[in-house]
Amino acid sequence: MIVHRHEIRVRYADTDKMQFVYNGKYLEYFEVGRTELLRSLGLPYSEVEKRGYQLPLVEANIKYKSAAFYDDLLIIESSYQLETTPIIQINYTIYRKETMEIIAEGFTKHIFIKEETKKAVRPPEFYIQAIQNAEENAREN
Amino acid sequence: MIVHRHEIRVRYADTDKMQFVYNGKYLEYFEVGRTELLRSLGLPYSEVEKRGYQLPLVEANIKYKSAAFYDDLLIIESSYQLETTPIIQINYTIYRKETMEIIAEGFTKHIFIKEETKKAVRPPEFYIQAIQNAEENAREN
Amino acid sequence: MIVHRHEIRVRYADTDKMQFVYNGKYLEYFEVGRTELLRSLGLPYSEVEKRGYQLPLVEANIKYKSAAFYDDLLIIESSYQLETTPIIQINYTIYRKETMEIIAEGFTKHIFIKEETKKAVRPPEFYIQAIQNAEENAREN
Amino acid sequence: MIVHRHEIRVRYADTDKMQFVYNGKYLEYFEVGRTELLRSLGLPYSEVEKRGYQLPLVEANIKYKSAAFYDDLLIIESSYQLETTPIIQINYTIYRKETMEIIAEGFTKHIFIKEETKKAVRPPEFYIQAIQNAEENAREN
Repeated sequence: MIVHRHEIRVRYADTDKMQFVYNGKYLEYFEVGRTELLRSLGLPYSEVEKRGYQLPLVEANIKYKSAAFYDDLLIIESSYQLETTPIIQINYTIYRKETMEIIAEGFTKHIFIKEETKKAVRPPEFYIQAIQNAEENAREN
Repeated sequence: MIVHRHEIRVRYADTDKMQFVYNGKYLEYFEVGRTELLRSLGLPYSEVEKRGYQLPLVEANIKYKSAAFYDDLLIIESSYQLETTPIIQINYTIYRKETMEIIAEGFTKHIFIKEETKKAVRPPEFYIQAIQNAEENAREN
Repeated sequence: MIVHRHEIRVRYADTDKMQFVYNGKYLEYFEVGRTELLRSLGLPYSEVEKRGYQLPLVEANIKYKSAAFYDDLLIIESSYQLETTPIIQINYTIYRKETMEIIAEGFTKHIFIKEETKKAVRPPEFYIQAIQNAEENAREN
Repeated sequence: MIVHRHEIRVRYADTDKMQFVYNGKYLEYFEVGRTELLRSLGLPYSEVEKRGYQLPLVEANIKYKSAAFYDDLLIIESSYQLETTPIIQINYTIYRKETMEIIAEGFTKHIFIKEETKKAVRPPEFYIQAIQNAEENAREN
């Protein structure tokens, strides 16, 4: 399993009149988490797209555990286990850095499609290779 | 069960470079759906807040079925069954109006809290009353 | 001059912890205003794009006059005068419907580009035609 | 004059179907810029709020110079000159880091208000002090 942590800071724009982060914003935080997880594998999502693949969501789930406030530093922990089916799942836990309190947990499921045909396909070879390398490195360290 | 339908139009701001609506936007569409469902019961959410209650999310789930595009007219169907526990669930189905194709399905779970204390409470009497009236009206019609 | 009015309702998502609408949201409201202005001329922006043109912004200006709150109904008044230069300007005034108080004023300037070449071009014939028809209709009524 | 630079990365959520960053997003980038400028002065905006002041916008202006794309690293340069009138102005230039091309320029004007009364006031003493210290440090270095 590959785990990656990334920090973000809550913007004023992210909050709503309930004084904390708007419920829909967490999907944007999840996006940042998986983007940085892929980058850490040497496989930026922009690269995946350049090679003609896209990974739209098929499902998302969020459990809101505690409120995040303006200017909080959050840690987004994204984890991922290689599967060779077209659908991949990434799990997320968001912590407030100062207290390590859990703010939210959730997952997103994505499907590999060819950009040209918009048809579902199995993960391409370059992708599987990058994940396997990362998993081996993780085991060795 | 109370069911309410409301139309919204996809904004340019809602789309992303994949050419269709960004995954996080659906939670905003769900928000519009439940706001209008509550308004149809004579109980605008702004009124709930004025009476000292709030309904933050504890969970959200979205299944993405088909892409929604810029300028599409969408129908958000929100449905709700009265429960007297602190946690209430609202279900949503989003359709493209032109084809009645399903775009997304999902739910949000909310918890009643007192704004002052931020403590969970059972749904207040005025709220239960409004839901029961609406359910009776629905049965009679 | 062509003037169009369109109503929108402030979403919870639009507010921030200062309790009113986030400053960046007004550009989204302006977008809705000009989209509906173009639609009222029989020329939806989605149609402009289908014909191979785009209208990215070159400048935007907003003067914030008064706060807009959650669930407020707003009127976006968009006005536009035909020019045949590549750059067009649309002016906006946003009112709170209940009180007709001015919430914000501003403008956006756009440049006609060909989608294919991304080069600036003069407004295409079908566009000028639609605007002229609308201006004549406005004069006659 | 105080100048501060801060990097942000363009999110998928920031883009729209025109393939680049949505026009309204720049006001959010400006927000991040001035937040980090204030933090660099030892005066986080969250601290300004805790002391009972707020700085809502009275005007914003953006000139769009070039498109910013998904995953681009941007540099937000925010600059500010102390004034003791209630209205303060911050200027911004956004660059694409890789090429140092200018993406956008603009300003925001803000007014100091007391949170309690929502009345305009002159900048409070602790604020003027922090700015003056920063300006002196800038001159010495």
